[in-house]
Amino acid sequence: MNKKIDFSTDKPTCNCGVFGIEGDENDLPLTTYFGLHALQHRGQEASGIVKASKNIDGNSQFRIHKGFGLVADVFSTGDMLTDDSNCKMSIGHNRYSTFGSSDSRNNIQPFVVNYRNGNLSIAHNGNFTNAKFLRKELENDGAIFQTTSDSEVVLHLIARSKKVSQIDQIREAIEALEGAFSLLIMTDDKLIGARDINGVRPLCLGKKGDSYIITSETCALDINSAKYIRDVEPGEILVIDKSTKNGHPLKSYKLEKKDSVKHCVFEYIYFSRPDSQIFGANVDKIRRKLGKNLALNHPVTDTDGGKVIVMGVPDSSNTAAIGYQNQLEKLGIPSKLEIGLIRSHYIGRTFILPAQKKREIGVKIKFNTVKGVIENKTIVLIDDSIVRGTTMKQLVNLIKEANPKSIHIRITSPPIYNPCYYGMDFPSKEELIANRFESIEKIREHLGVDSLDYMTEDELLNSMVDHSPIDFCTACFTGKYPIPVKDLEE
Amino acid sequence: MNKKIDFSTDKPTCNCGVFGIEGDENDLPLTTYFGLHALQHRGQEASGIVKASKNIDGNSQFRIHKGFGLVADVFSTGDMLTDDSNCKMSIGHNRYSTFGSSDSRNNIQPFVVNYRNGNLSIAHNGNFTNAKFLRKELENDGAIFQTTSDSEVVLHLIARSKKVSQIDQIREAIEALEGAFSLLIMTDDKLIGARDINGVRPLCLGKKGDSYIITSETCALDINSAKYIRDVEPGEILVIDKSTKNGHPLKSYKLEKKDSVKHCVFEYIYFSRPDSQIFGANVDKIRRKLGKNLALNHPVTDTDGGKVIVMGVPDSSNTAAIGYQNQLEKLGIPSKLEIGLIRSHYIGRTFILPAQKKREIGVKIKFNTVKGVIENKTIVLIDDSIVRGTTMKQLVNLIKEANPKSIHIRITSPPIYNPCYYGMDFPSKEELIANRFESIEKIREHLGVDSLDYMTEDELLNSMVDHSPIDFCTACFTGKYPIPVKDLEE
Amino acid sequence: MNKKIDFSTDKPTCNCGVFGIEGDENDLPLTTYFGLHALQHRGQEASGIVKASKNIDGNSQFRIHKGFGLVADVFSTGDMLTDDSNCKMSIGHNRYSTFGSSDSRNNIQPFVVNYRNGNLSIAHNGNFTNAKFLRKELENDGAIFQTTSDSEVVLHLIARSKKVSQIDQIREAIEALEGAFSLLIMTDDKLIGARDINGVRPLCLGKKGDSYIITSETCALDINSAKYIRDVEPGEILVIDKSTKNGHPLKSYKLEKKDSVKHCVFEYIYFSRPDSQIFGANVDKIRRKLGKNLALNHPVTDTDGGKVIVMGVPDSSNTAAIGYQNQLEKLGIPSKLEIGLIRSHYIGRTFILPAQKKREIGVKIKFNTVKGVIENKTIVLIDDSIVRGTTMKQLVNLIKEANPKSIHIRITSPPIYNPCYYGMDFPSKEELIANRFESIEKIREHLGVDSLDYMTEDELLNSMVDHSPIDFCTACFTGKYPIPVKDLEE
Amino acid sequence: MNKKIDFSTDKPTCNCGVFGIEGDENDLPLTTYFGLHALQHRGQEASGIVKASKNIDGNSQFRIHKGFGLVADVFSTGDMLTDDSNCKMSIGHNRYSTFGSSDSRNNIQPFVVNYRNGNLSIAHNGNFTNAKFLRKELENDGAIFQTTSDSEVVLHLIARSKKVSQIDQIREAIEALEGAFSLLIMTDDKLIGARDINGVRPLCLGKKGDSYIITSETCALDINSAKYIRDVEPGEILVIDKSTKNGHPLKSYKLEKKDSVKHCVFEYIYFSRPDSQIFGANVDKIRRKLGKNLALNHPVTDTDGGKVIVMGVPDSSNTAAIGYQNQLEKLGIPSKLEIGLIRSHYIGRTFILPAQKKREIGVKIKFNTVKGVIENKTIVLIDDSIVRGTTMKQLVNLIKEANPKSIHIRITSPPIYNPCYYGMDFPSKEELIANRFESIEKIREHLGVDSLDYMTEDELLNSMVDHSPIDFCTACFTGKYPIPVKDLEE
Repeated sequence: MNKKIDFSTDKPTCNCGVFGIEGDENDLPLTTYFGLHALQHRGQEASGIVKASKNIDGNSQFRIHKGFGLVADVFSTGDMLTDDSNCKMSIGHNRYSTFGSSDSRNNIQPFVVNYRNGNLSIAHNGNFTNAKFLRKELENDGAIFQTTSDSEVVLHLIARSKKVSQIDQIREAIEALEGAFSLLIMTDDKLIGARDINGVRPLCLGKKGDSYIITSETCALDINSAKYIRDVEPGEILVIDKSTKNGHPLKSYKLEKKDSVKHCVFEYIYFSRPDSQIFGANVDKIRRKLGKNLALNHPVTDTDGGKVIVMGVPDSSNTAAIGYQNQLEKLGIPSKLEIGLIRSHYIGRTFILPAQKKREIGVKIKFNTVKGVIENKTIVLIDDSIVRGTTMKQLVNLIKEANPKSIHIRITSPPIYNPCYYGMDFPSKEELIANRFESIEKIREHLGVDSLDYMTEDELLNSMVDHSPIDFCTACFTGKYPIPVKDLEE
Repeated sequence: MNKKIDFSTDKPTCNCGVFGIEGDENDLPLTTYFGLHALQHRGQEASGIVKASKNIDGNSQFRIHKGFGLVADVFSTGDMLTDDSNCKMSIGHNRYSTFGSSDSRNNIQPFVVNYRNGNLSIAHNGNFTNAKFLRKELENDGAIFQTTSDSEVVLHLIARSKKVSQIDQIREAIEALEGAFSLLIMTDDKLIGARDINGVRPLCLGKKGDSYIITSETCALDINSAKYIRDVEPGEILVIDKSTKNGHPLKSYKLEKKDSVKHCVFEYIYFSRPDSQIFGANVDKIRRKLGKNLALNHPVTDTDGGKVIVMGVPDSSNTAAIGYQNQLEKLGIPSKLEIGLIRSHYIGRTFILPAQKKREIGVKIKFNTVKGVIENKTIVLIDDSIVRGTTMKQLVNLIKEANPKSIHIRITSPPIYNPCYYGMDFPSKEELIANRFESIEKIREHLGVDSLDYMTEDELLNSMVDHSPIDFCTACFTGKYPIPVKDLEE
Repeated sequence: MNKKIDFSTDKPTCNCGVFGIEGDENDLPLTTYFGLHALQHRGQEASGIVKASKNIDGNSQFRIHKGFGLVADVFSTGDMLTDDSNCKMSIGHNRYSTFGSSDSRNNIQPFVVNYRNGNLSIAHNGNFTNAKFLRKELENDGAIFQTTSDSEVVLHLIARSKKVSQIDQIREAIEALEGAFSLLIMTDDKLIGARDINGVRPLCLGKKGDSYIITSETCALDINSAKYIRDVEPGEILVIDKSTKNGHPLKSYKLEKKDSVKHCVFEYIYFSRPDSQIFGANVDKIRRKLGKNLALNHPVTDTDGGKVIVMGVPDSSNTAAIGYQNQLEKLGIPSKLEIGLIRSHYIGRTFILPAQKKREIGVKIKFNTVKGVIENKTIVLIDDSIVRGTTMKQLVNLIKEANPKSIHIRITSPPIYNPCYYGMDFPSKEELIANRFESIEKIREHLGVDSLDYMTEDELLNSMVDHSPIDFCTACFTGKYPIPVKDLEE
Repeated sequence: MNKKIDFSTDKPTCNCGVFGIEGDENDLPLTTYFGLHALQHRGQEASGIVKASKNIDGNSQFRIHKGFGLVADVFSTGDMLTDDSNCKMSIGHNRYSTFGSSDSRNNIQPFVVNYRNGNLSIAHNGNFTNAKFLRKELENDGAIFQTTSDSEVVLHLIARSKKVSQIDQIREAIEALEGAFSLLIMTDDKLIGARDINGVRPLCLGKKGDSYIITSETCALDINSAKYIRDVEPGEILVIDKSTKNGHPLKSYKLEKKDSVKHCVFEYIYFSRPDSQIFGANVDKIRRKLGKNLALNHPVTDTDGGKVIVMGVPDSSNTAAIGYQNQLEKLGIPSKLEIGLIRSHYIGRTFILPAQKKREIGVKIKFNTVKGVIENKTIVLIDDSIVRGTTMKQLVNLIKEANPKSIHIRITSPPIYNPCYYGMDFPSKEELIANRFESIEKIREHLGVDSLDYMTEDELLNSMVDHSPIDFCTACFTGKYPIPVKDLEE
């Protein structure tokens, strides 16, 4: 594959979406395919689907197809998806690489291996904080590794468990893992979902006909007309096993370790789709609340008594912009919600541009302004976060070309100062705009806007309706890491 | 190429976008590439770029790269775009096929040929209404055709003109054409833009440094940081020729035929990008006005005095939805603008799905609802048009799953009863929903909504701010065709 | 397509092989495909197949698939070859470009166009000597050209003919052509083969069941288990038309111009396959005779009375080597035929090697020696021609590494001094080794061998068993061009 | 990858060729590439190259490129081969699958993994006879497997060795292996070649400049202008390690087990290239001897006193045919060596043909006859082996079409009755023609020839010049397996 560049906005990247289904319906791989479509926002670098089929002789066979690119590209021929009469289970994965070296095909998940109890496949969202430690231990015990990905250790831990029952092997392996993870494991007869004790990343259970589904977000259920049943609980190992015909196919095991819930607040701020329900609440509802609290605490007024124009950076901040403008209205501040930035959705990956042309084009390949909306107006631009700040600066310059009266930026999260060890991919600490300038005022100057306000941590956590403020990890803002990171200790 | 299907909404399709540039800058093909990116909405089926280079011996050479798919796919390797030090002109084209058989690679524009005066390349947006007639005449005179595309006749007409000067040949050829067209012609030393006398499709002139650009919409200027100068006038042939060092490089010729302006009203309703200026007005401004007039004449009130939820079908109807809700507010009707439909932008073309799965997935691959926004609410859904009605019916069913109190559809255009002969691609007359049901009430029943209102022709034309109502073609609504269609006469 | 290099031996390249079939059997395109396989040696740069099918409405449709590379590569998916129940005719072409610019996909034959009498397709082997002249005339009359290939003029000539009957149009067109050509033309209901009055390139008629085949060499009949019937005669236009149900399907027309036969002697020396029959004689038989006459006139004896080792440069000179050794035996010279050079057949086109590595590898990627055969022996190396001489020099060096007693080169043709205007592709005159050195003795010195002998023209022509010596064109050796080259006159 | 079929002759298939090089020259991967080119005959299904580079920080990095198809196809872009300034070692592999499931990309060698002592890569030619046994043991100890290939066990054995020094780990691993193998192992600083105690498959050491090469056959040295030094001995582990600057870079270890040499006789009969030297003798010389002994014991005479025409099945039997004809001559039997079968070398893999067409084409896609050579002649056809007999029967039919007086088949090996467990791939026992008919006479009848003679085992072994007859494994003819096959015991 040729290296290509992505005209992405300057956002953190989440590591991956997972989807698994079992049952007797004859289109499980296709259902997985559409599930990955719906989870495309969680990882656009690579995609893979494994299907488990029963041969005529009753033996199980795992087939995999994976590749770099969007789901639609990787499966552009429909290969493996449609001849699936014997397929009884399927899991899939969208990747946005974090610690694994992203340029190796081997690192694309799901992983499939063979061990003494048969086939084993895994798909992982999150990040183990003791992966290097475990790997070293395993290597010293004679293990060989095919990938540079954290997730491979899980397979070794299962295979090396001395337990007899496969469930016990898997439980023992997962007990050894630390950090943030929402895991799917497929064996010859079981589909298993597991979530870390803090519940950092989302994972939910759904049902379509008699088939159970385990996936990252509910939007992957909706696209398949499946019903949401409940979340896989933090610290739960949920096993779906229909091979033993008697008894209920679902069995739930709890991890022995205990800890308080620490959801990633960025899942609500930016990662998850607004139409999903995660951590027990609607993403859209919380994003709207973020907008309202932002307006309540950081309103903008037109100096001449005119209407303030509120616009979000599309598409991720549209909902928050609605909340912001609604609240301004309640505050009696004349305002209007507008679409002042048009985003092109045709831009995906493109070839390597000459450096000068790339600089010249900048955000223009992705955004354009609606000049009539902006000209001579007081503009409030709502965005969910600023990471490096390079895109925001270009966006401000673009808006300025349309001659606004003034530009005010309001962010629905606090400044980002710290790396994430639980599955988000930020640039290096030095590149974060909040670390590059000594104050928000200096950032404002750098961006060249009339005002710039971030939400405070308190305002953020008070926006988490249906939750307690202490249920969240805010380490990227505060540096308070709720889960120890063993791999950093060396 | 494998045949693939498109999960497109049920919209008319426009035939093509064009972009041409000349000058001394060293990145003309790249500029064309980005121009086509910005015009992607005008045609997603195929794309091509021709560049004219001067060899060391002073001879001109035309090189072309074209293929099926989006601009980013066709030029995924950057081939031909970056080694362009000798390139002095370049034109490009995005296609959405109309009359040409879409499955032949030969039909992808621009076309390049050689004739006695050198190289000749053409890119065409629109539809000639006498193409079959001209083709027959040319064939009887011994012409051979490589494509089934209308546009090839232009090349023959130029080559067969007995005029000595190339400009005169081109003028004579264009005088013979009837119908709707915005044409780009490139010769060894000239870049030429031409527009039919009715000005049905847009075409504008821009400038970037010393380079002139001719293109379909201003958004293709914006992405390249180029300045809008003026429209190419209806009936104008605009020649850019820097080969004669003295005199102004721009020469304008008027077609001898005269007629009144008849812009395609659908360009404002749906085709063009909201951030573009076409026909002398901002698209966004008119779409907003359409929303307002729609609300004025076809308001919706919540029966229980609650707030009416206004939402557009994203992305094309978002601006009209803003206008609609603003007007409701002015009318004193409690209302709120909301984002109740989430659109996935990762869905492009996919492999051929099994029929049953395709039916099951339907619009869900493209849209999902935000349930909290819709539940128990009076919903007004704004869309720009209904063509077959299949997508709209699926959308209504999707919204119903979120349990609204009631659903009211408001369309910013009248019902479509008739085919377009000027460059839009509708399904057959029998498939149009307005022809399949005897009344709007029957359509409403079919869609299963609480109310359905279309704009009237008068309301539509009165929304055309900065224009006279008589400046527009509305044949698809009214059947009154302003330009005779010679090809239908046989 | 990436430009690639070919580790070809240093041989002239022939321009193309053609294959056409008509009939009711249901695998005509596949038969064409295998025909092209058998003709692969006549052109390895690009390949194409057109099939003519009858639609349900009785209309004829021409579909084409073509691309760069070997037949097996271009048709690697079998696309278009297997769903052919309605296919009634098919023609195909292998190209080794001569005058057409080789890097344009447009130039790959067959060509397909549409004119007033329907579809028209053409495949051409040879070279028109008045193509530029005709093209200019046509351009002045308003014709537009899509390719830089000579062959396109034929289509224009047919379309511009004022004759009413299609056969008359085609006859008129072919009468206008000068030079060397073996042409296949396909119309909606006829398959036509035509050959220039001198019969420079081969073309034959075969039959398989009730289907007629016209093709370049009989090996393309053999692979398809078809029967050879006769050659298409020099100056003959052979029409196969089964659309008129009465009368014989074959009609033969003679060109009005007359001239003596002038076969390309290189077809026997090198181009055609040894298992083919062309110009009425077996290629193998003549090549054997060439070897014999070479031995008779240019024998080699081992100085110490040992056996002379005779070996051909594989594979093209193997047959001549047999003839040479047989004749030595008859002359009483102790000798032995051996396989001293092993040729790798897996080497096709490869990526662009770094220059140094390419020099270092040289012929070794294609040839290796069998050391035991060569060591301390008197070696006679038989080859059919030396063009640039670079490969021969590398080959000599390779053989020297195996320590022969002496190396003697014998060539079954005279030195090449002149370009061919009838369809062979030589390097420029300056590059020909015979022009770079003032004598054969100097060439021998340059190659570093013990002796070097070419056949004389007389010896060559006397080897043409079953032919009169005057039946051949030997211009590349003698400079006597039997057919005037109008295009050189300007 | 689409499944494709191969028009291969009906021959046993060898499992793989290997090539490794270390040193300071800057084109090691390219040298490997050309080495694999020369070894293409040992495996055409898939190919891979690994290169070991030193990063700026001194760390070693292994990069791999592999894929299905010929070497030239897999490396068609030259990816990874040319930017190699830091590459210090490289190994490559051509595969013809034996026991590994051939359709998985994972099974393509070389394999690369990571273990506690760094990177590890392996390329394997041969077959372990205790691979299943070892795999079961390893699985029970917690090992996970990524492939279904035998060769993966070696990596686990190395990683699980408790030895401290890497050499000791590798020695311990190789001591555990049984069967036939010529192995290349690459670590971060060593290139290692190892050969089983029986020396079943070839492996040799060469030198190019200061770089050492270990490869399957000497033809891979010749193409690279490298010098042959000696064979890697049966039971030898040869380590090339330049990381310790003092001492000789070559170290040789002997396996503790001892056994007599048992070379695969089929390497001489068919597998190896005639220009190679293996097992200490020239392949060409032995093949010539095979032909001579065949003539001595199984001569053919023309009944009418005419010349017997001797021809080999190209290309593998050409040398034996020369030997055969030379011996006939010595016996005073009038005879002539001829090229009566022309083999097309352009045929590679092609798309899946409809069954009927495939039957119809048969061997014609690969072979054609030179009719003049065969007609009315007594033909002796020399081939090296008959496996299924299907190709031979088609070949006989093809020759009959050319009307010979009689056809006599002579085979340079005995009939094949038994499977090979040491790395050759035969069809199932039931498919072998020798098992399908009760006598050679019945086979002759089935093939429809005038006589059929195989060599006896004694005649075969007496042809092994420079060797003792007891040095060879002839199990496929005799059923006497010199190496126990533990995997069969269960």
